[in-house]
Amino acid sequence: MAWRLLLQRTRPFGCIEREGKQVVILGVPLDSTATHRPGTRFAPNAIREAACSLELYSYATEADMEDLGITDLGDVAIPQGDVHVALENIKAVARGVYEEYPGSLKVFLGGEHLITLPIVRAAGRSVDRVVVFDAHLDLRDEYLGSRFNHATFARRLADEGYSLIYIGSRAFSREELRFLAGAKDVEVIPARRMREGGARLGNLGRVYVSIDIDVLDPAYAPGTGAPEPLGMAPLELLDALKGVIESSEKIVGMDVVEVNPLVDPSGATSFLAAKLVLEAVAMALRKTRLL
Amino acid sequence: MAWRLLLQRTRPFGCIEREGKQVVILGVPLDSTATHRPGTRFAPNAIREAACSLELYSYATEADMEDLGITDLGDVAIPQGDVHVALENIKAVARGVYEEYPGSLKVFLGGEHLITLPIVRAAGRSVDRVVVFDAHLDLRDEYLGSRFNHATFARRLADEGYSLIYIGSRAFSREELRFLAGAKDVEVIPARRMREGGARLGNLGRVYVSIDIDVLDPAYAPGTGAPEPLGMAPLELLDALKGVIESSEKIVGMDVVEVNPLVDPSGATSFLAAKLVLEAVAMALRKTRLL
Amino acid sequence: MAWRLLLQRTRPFGCIEREGKQVVILGVPLDSTATHRPGTRFAPNAIREAACSLELYSYATEADMEDLGITDLGDVAIPQGDVHVALENIKAVARGVYEEYPGSLKVFLGGEHLITLPIVRAAGRSVDRVVVFDAHLDLRDEYLGSRFNHATFARRLADEGYSLIYIGSRAFSREELRFLAGAKDVEVIPARRMREGGARLGNLGRVYVSIDIDVLDPAYAPGTGAPEPLGMAPLELLDALKGVIESSEKIVGMDVVEVNPLVDPSGATSFLAAKLVLEAVAMALRKTRLL
Amino acid sequence: MAWRLLLQRTRPFGCIEREGKQVVILGVPLDSTATHRPGTRFAPNAIREAACSLELYSYATEADMEDLGITDLGDVAIPQGDVHVALENIKAVARGVYEEYPGSLKVFLGGEHLITLPIVRAAGRSVDRVVVFDAHLDLRDEYLGSRFNHATFARRLADEGYSLIYIGSRAFSREELRFLAGAKDVEVIPARRMREGGARLGNLGRVYVSIDIDVLDPAYAPGTGAPEPLGMAPLELLDALKGVIESSEKIVGMDVVEVNPLVDPSGATSFLAAKLVLEAVAMALRKTRLL
Amino acid sequence: MAWRLLLQRTRPFGCIEREGKQVVILGVPLDSTATHRPGTRFAPNAIREAACSLELYSYATEADMEDLGITDLGDVAIPQGDVHVALENIKAVARGVYEEYPGSLKVFLGGEHLITLPIVRAAGRSVDRVVVFDAHLDLRDEYLGSRFNHATFARRLADEGYSLIYIGSRAFSREELRFLAGAKDVEVIPARRMREGGARLGNLGRVYVSIDIDVLDPAYAPGTGAPEPLGMAPLELLDALKGVIESSEKIVGMDVVEVNPLVDPSGATSFLAAKLVLEAVAMALRKTRLL
Amino acid sequence: MAWRLLLQRTRPFGCIEREGKQVVILGVPLDSTATHRPGTRFAPNAIREAACSLELYSYATEADMEDLGITDLGDVAIPQGDVHVALENIKAVARGVYEEYPGSLKVFLGGEHLITLPIVRAAGRSVDRVVVFDAHLDLRDEYLGSRFNHATFARRLADEGYSLIYIGSRAFSREELRFLAGAKDVEVIPARRMREGGARLGNLGRVYVSIDIDVLDPAYAPGTGAPEPLGMAPLELLDALKGVIESSEKIVGMDVVEVNPLVDPSGATSFLAAKLVLEAVAMALRKTRLL
Repeated sequence: MAWRLLLQRTRPFGCIEREGKQVVILGVPLDSTATHRPGTRFAPNAIREAACSLELYSYATEADMEDLGITDLGDVAIPQGDVHVALENIKAVARGVYEEYPGSLKVFLGGEHLITLPIVRAAGRSVDRVVVFDAHLDLRDEYLGSRFNHATFARRLADEGYSLIYIGSRAFSREELRFLAGAKDVEVIPARRMREGGARLGNLGRVYVSIDIDVLDPAYAPGTGAPEPLGMAPLELLDALKGVIESSEKIVGMDVVEVNPLVDPSGATSFLAAKLVLEAVAMALRKTRLL
Repeated sequence: MAWRLLLQRTRPFGCIEREGKQVVILGVPLDSTATHRPGTRFAPNAIREAACSLELYSYATEADMEDLGITDLGDVAIPQGDVHVALENIKAVARGVYEEYPGSLKVFLGGEHLITLPIVRAAGRSVDRVVVFDAHLDLRDEYLGSRFNHATFARRLADEGYSLIYIGSRAFSREELRFLAGAKDVEVIPARRMREGGARLGNLGRVYVSIDIDVLDPAYAPGTGAPEPLGMAPLELLDALKGVIESSEKIVGMDVVEVNPLVDPSGATSFLAAKLVLEAVAMALRKTRLL
Repeated sequence: MAWRLLLQRTRPFGCIEREGKQVVILGVPLDSTATHRPGTRFAPNAIREAACSLELYSYATEADMEDLGITDLGDVAIPQGDVHVALENIKAVARGVYEEYPGSLKVFLGGEHLITLPIVRAAGRSVDRVVVFDAHLDLRDEYLGSRFNHATFARRLADEGYSLIYIGSRAFSREELRFLAGAKDVEVIPARRMREGGARLGNLGRVYVSIDIDVLDPAYAPGTGAPEPLGMAPLELLDALKGVIESSEKIVGMDVVEVNPLVDPSGATSFLAAKLVLEAVAMALRKTRLL
Repeated sequence: MAWRLLLQRTRPFGCIEREGKQVVILGVPLDSTATHRPGTRFAPNAIREAACSLELYSYATEADMEDLGITDLGDVAIPQGDVHVALENIKAVARGVYEEYPGSLKVFLGGEHLITLPIVRAAGRSVDRVVVFDAHLDLRDEYLGSRFNHATFARRLADEGYSLIYIGSRAFSREELRFLAGAKDVEVIPARRMREGGARLGNLGRVYVSIDIDVLDPAYAPGTGAPEPLGMAPLELLDALKGVIESSEKIVGMDVVEVNPLVDPSGATSFLAAKLVLEAVAMALRKTRLL
Repeated sequence: MAWRLLLQRTRPFGCIEREGKQVVILGVPLDSTATHRPGTRFAPNAIREAACSLELYSYATEADMEDLGITDLGDVAIPQGDVHVALENIKAVARGVYEEYPGSLKVFLGGEHLITLPIVRAAGRSVDRVVVFDAHLDLRDEYLGSRFNHATFARRLADEGYSLIYIGSRAFSREELRFLAGAKDVEVIPARRMREGGARLGNLGRVYVSIDIDVLDPAYAPGTGAPEPLGMAPLELLDALKGVIESSEKIVGMDVVEVNPLVDPSGATSFLAAKLVLEAVAMALRKTRLL
Repeated sequence: MAWRLLLQRTRPFGCIEREGKQVVILGVPLDSTATHRPGTRFAPNAIREAACSLELYSYATEADMEDLGITDLGDVAIPQGDVHVALENIKAVARGVYEEYPGSLKVFLGGEHLITLPIVRAAGRSVDRVVVFDAHLDLRDEYLGSRFNHATFARRLADEGYSLIYIGSRAFSREELRFLAGAKDVEVIPARRMREGGARLGNLGRVYVSIDIDVLDPAYAPGTGAPEPLGMAPLELLDALKGVIESSEKIVGMDVVEVNPLVDPSGATSFLAAKLVLEAVAMALRKTRLL
């Protein structure tokens, strides 16, 4: 398969190679458009390494996952700085993953938030709705003259007709507030409302879940480019995530993005990202009776 | 103006120079008397840089501040180690700022907490009360043989007849507890009481607000010289700050001090300090109908 | 005394040497068996240094401790990498401490969690119960072929007949869950239950308290080898600790372990460890009317 | 002037603003295409800051430069990740600088090496020859599918007809060796030959000098993305630079690139870059009798 | 093959997987016995990563190595802290490598210097002489009560009858000086003598080469546990290495040890280690006409 | 003795307490007046710790020093920021040391260079000449309005009539060059001249030796506040030091200053400082036949 030529071998998630493919993991170290603090390219390996110190036990579901089959495909090779070629490569690999692992839960490890664009595009019409956990909306039309970067990716998704639901957002530009006012398929749900009744989400259909780690309070996730104060606590995020998973028909894929190990010397952000992957996997597999 | 000769040009708060002077910002990188961990001299620029990644949107007031006029004067030149000359310089510059920007909200970025002394002195009798958010009281009479340092600055203010109100304090020396017992114009309000009814503060008159970042729990603000455990959460601080602003006649000036970028590798403390500045500005301008 | 030959001089806890021996402190920098992130050998000095910036005032008991007598014995010399010799040395020194300081509160500063094994062994039958605050159980029988490491130490204690109570644990391996099911003298109490009624612990007898700093949420204690998400807050830990101390007949000794300064650049974890020591000391002395 | 709208205010080179414009400095923090270790965007400010601690005295010429007039224009605003827009912006600003400061020595502080391309293009035919100090040749035609990045910039210059002379290069790809074999206007001079007789360079005409800091041995300049072992010593570089300046008719401009403060915790690389700027300025002004 | 079960997958040396097995690489992250500064466990991956930024071109031989076949086997799984089990595992894997890759040049990436012991033992009598580049002799009989650690490994080799030649050593304990005086098969050659005439080494027979990175001056290789001042320069080391390779019949294997990425924030030490591997490989293959 | 009350206990130089007082060590962590990068307060302990990993063997004299008696008195307590009190304290302690340890070699570990002033003052007229190894002259009359700081200390010594000899200086201000021109008891010797004939120094009389670590090239000593390029190599410094010691009647005392561990993450600068202490001690004791 040609897309496999774009992969680079890495240490596997959790150190140990596990037979089976209930979960497929792909690193996507795109790290080109950050204005102030680059470094998300180092996240896939930092999250894999953090997972080596976690037990395969889920807090949220109390499931033991020691038998879980995980295939870690390694990283996509990224030409940093040439965003257009990079987006094409990511899309090609993501499409390959969707095609060859139809029955697996797909987990993408960023990299910057822009990776969500080609990954969702690769899924095409098999996605009804993108649920975005993010401090920011990333709905600008342009940012410093470019239409393809971490601050605009969601606008591109909206342009292409995807429904968006935001959870935990709290930093808005004037342009975004105006866009929101006129957009009919973009919804912002405060975390508080989620906690009081996740079921009210209704049927979300086939969902792609994107978790920008900065949705969390910087106390819990300091290692990110723009640690926006006043964010969610991890247990609140897990509750909200549970609501989303239970309200969806299918989880088409999920990503965790914007972890920046260069500003996370304790590693706590990578540990939390790895834990979120494990808990989301447990919740998604439990829902489909695979765990 | 002679005092302008003591200024050094810096990158502006938030990266972009904004016309207007609703807010005037001055960096005061005094960093001489810390016993254990120096580094607050790097805070003004770290806070300015962090502000570049924040939206000009206020969480507390839901105000869009993209039209806000901000004049960032740069930093006072500081002869580190000669505290007496340094205090004179800071006082001279602060007086210049009060005189030339009478209608602006003045924001001072420390540096160590000792800067509050010359800044309040420069304001003279136009201040009725100093509200101090701080884990410590800084009310020692002397510390290691010196009367002018981070541990004694508030005692000097008390000596000079200023009323003091503390919020969030939790680390006390025996000497300070004894002084408190006898002082009539120094009050310590636990954060808890503030939250339950900020209005009960009564009319505070013309207030200078000083925020030592260590009033916050180290989970939120690890980047400070003495990260005292068991502190306030940012939302609690914003609530208390709102109570103070609403109970005051005028905010004569405010500072954020004791951020230490050398022990804040994630930058989260600088981001939080920048956010506190923006939220306090929004609350103060909202109160005076300027926003 | 021969055991004193195994001591190395260090800076004293809190910088100042204080006459008296209400509290005896010993550093135990064993740091050999961590799989992923070594560095706990630097913790005793980091905690001592952090204590220099703390007031000797207890938040939990409101006691002023400026008259407290503290004898800091320095560190045990450790042959890293040869765990068997290291365990013998630690046991010999701990026995010396128990014998020569019968009336003092003994505080051991790790080092990795394995140090609890020789310290409890040295106390022998004068300990009825070991209360362990820890994210993990450390109850594996073997880990990578070795029976003596950070992941197995508690299993050795259970093998040797000690009663164990865990508080705050949340990461379990399958092997540990199976062992727990069959063990009759090992209990796991969720932090939540503690908070709702510490008194229900009953009489715990003579207790050794071991605090693995990773029982706390990484937001508060990021500086540890395996920062396990979803942990306790410091005030919850203090409450639980209070319950344990009040339910015990005697505190035979206590340790704080697994602080790793190499991944704690803000130092907040060491500050918190030092504060926990001071608060635990205040509570224990208060109980015995020594404070 | 429209190009000035693309500038951002910064702290000035050497902390103090100096009247006059014998030297004009521009920061160009392009940092998009590094494959492995980003961070050159932080170099202009790090070099400016380092210069604050250097005396304005030249080692090579023994000239006192305390009266030197330096205009520091600040930084070009860079849309990271969109290399094409970035190159246009840099070119526009560089052209503005050439036009408005015809009599000044122009010094550009990178950023990554790619900045040399638009800066030389802006100079157009007023440059006869580009002298490149660099461990690498950066002469690939493409790198990971892109024609515009740090590994290809010199090939673009060669394509556009510029003469290139390399000094200190030592890491070559097969593709580059083949290109070199066929290129007639690209010369590689080992540092050793320079030292033995700089005069032999002949008349170089109007020269643009580009110094990639990695031409130096990593012992002296560790803070760079690809610290290539076995490089030049600073005194060797100064000697070679002297030879180039003396053999040229005019120095059209110069840059220092690829300093990466994120991997230069001691700051020694930024100090050395600042010193190189000062020494090169002294040598160039001395040659034109301006010092 | 059972020994392959002890391997863990990693990113390959130089990022790209290259067909062929002229060179076989094995990571051996043993990191248990360092007294003061642990961290060598991170070296194999840091060296692999550094190699991604190096051209496959040899400075010493001027050979282009872009066609070189390299098989990177990943890392041996190490039970840190239990030195005896660890030595057994390393020996088993090394023996497997010798047996299955008889025609390849074997390169082992430490890890601490103790790894040389089991790797040479695995080679058994196929090694005539161990050439050790090292600031220290590591010839103590015991160190802090243990006979198997970084300070004693060479004594064990001497005990087992191996001939040792040291190059570049400069830090000696009294015990080692006394041992040297009586040992007949241990020779210490100052680097200076090597440079003046490598040929004088005579026929060294089948040689195992061990390079402790601290043989280099800390200016070049700061990232090591005990950066001993006054060491060799890299070009001196390459010359000495060339002398050794030319005087040997066969290079049975080689290692590079004691790189410690935790104290090498610029990465320069890992880059230099990777470069040494490439240069040593070029010289060894050139000698056997394989390059 | 009253001066002992100003001492604080520390870990001893080299970790092990050694009976005897051939050498007396005192830490002087004054760190108040650095303009840009504070941190020298951490140097005494960093140098002590580095010494733990060095063999007690002298490279320059080939002497085994394992029997050397070293008394490490710990650190002087310093009120940072109040330079006047600090200078008094240091002088009082230094005088105590001179009086109580007349036959010992006194070694002072800074701290910033200003410590040399009170230490020389304490020695009074028992010093004929101060030999200063330093990149800078520190001969300004005032610096930022203060007469007592790192940039003026030597001017104070000159004012007070001490003869000064500089070795290795290379950064001069205009003011200093003018002062030098008129001063008759201040001499600057380039390192080069020293190397070619140290004996030519003549009889220096009773000498105090002060080594500012920045006399070395930043390649060797990056960990200092102002890493001035183009400095000496360690072997050159040892040679020059040998010349000075051989030309002196007596070494009254010596210091090593301006090591800054906050910008020395590899620790190489502290290792080199510790090695310089050991080598200087060996040379001085050898000269007086004490070794």
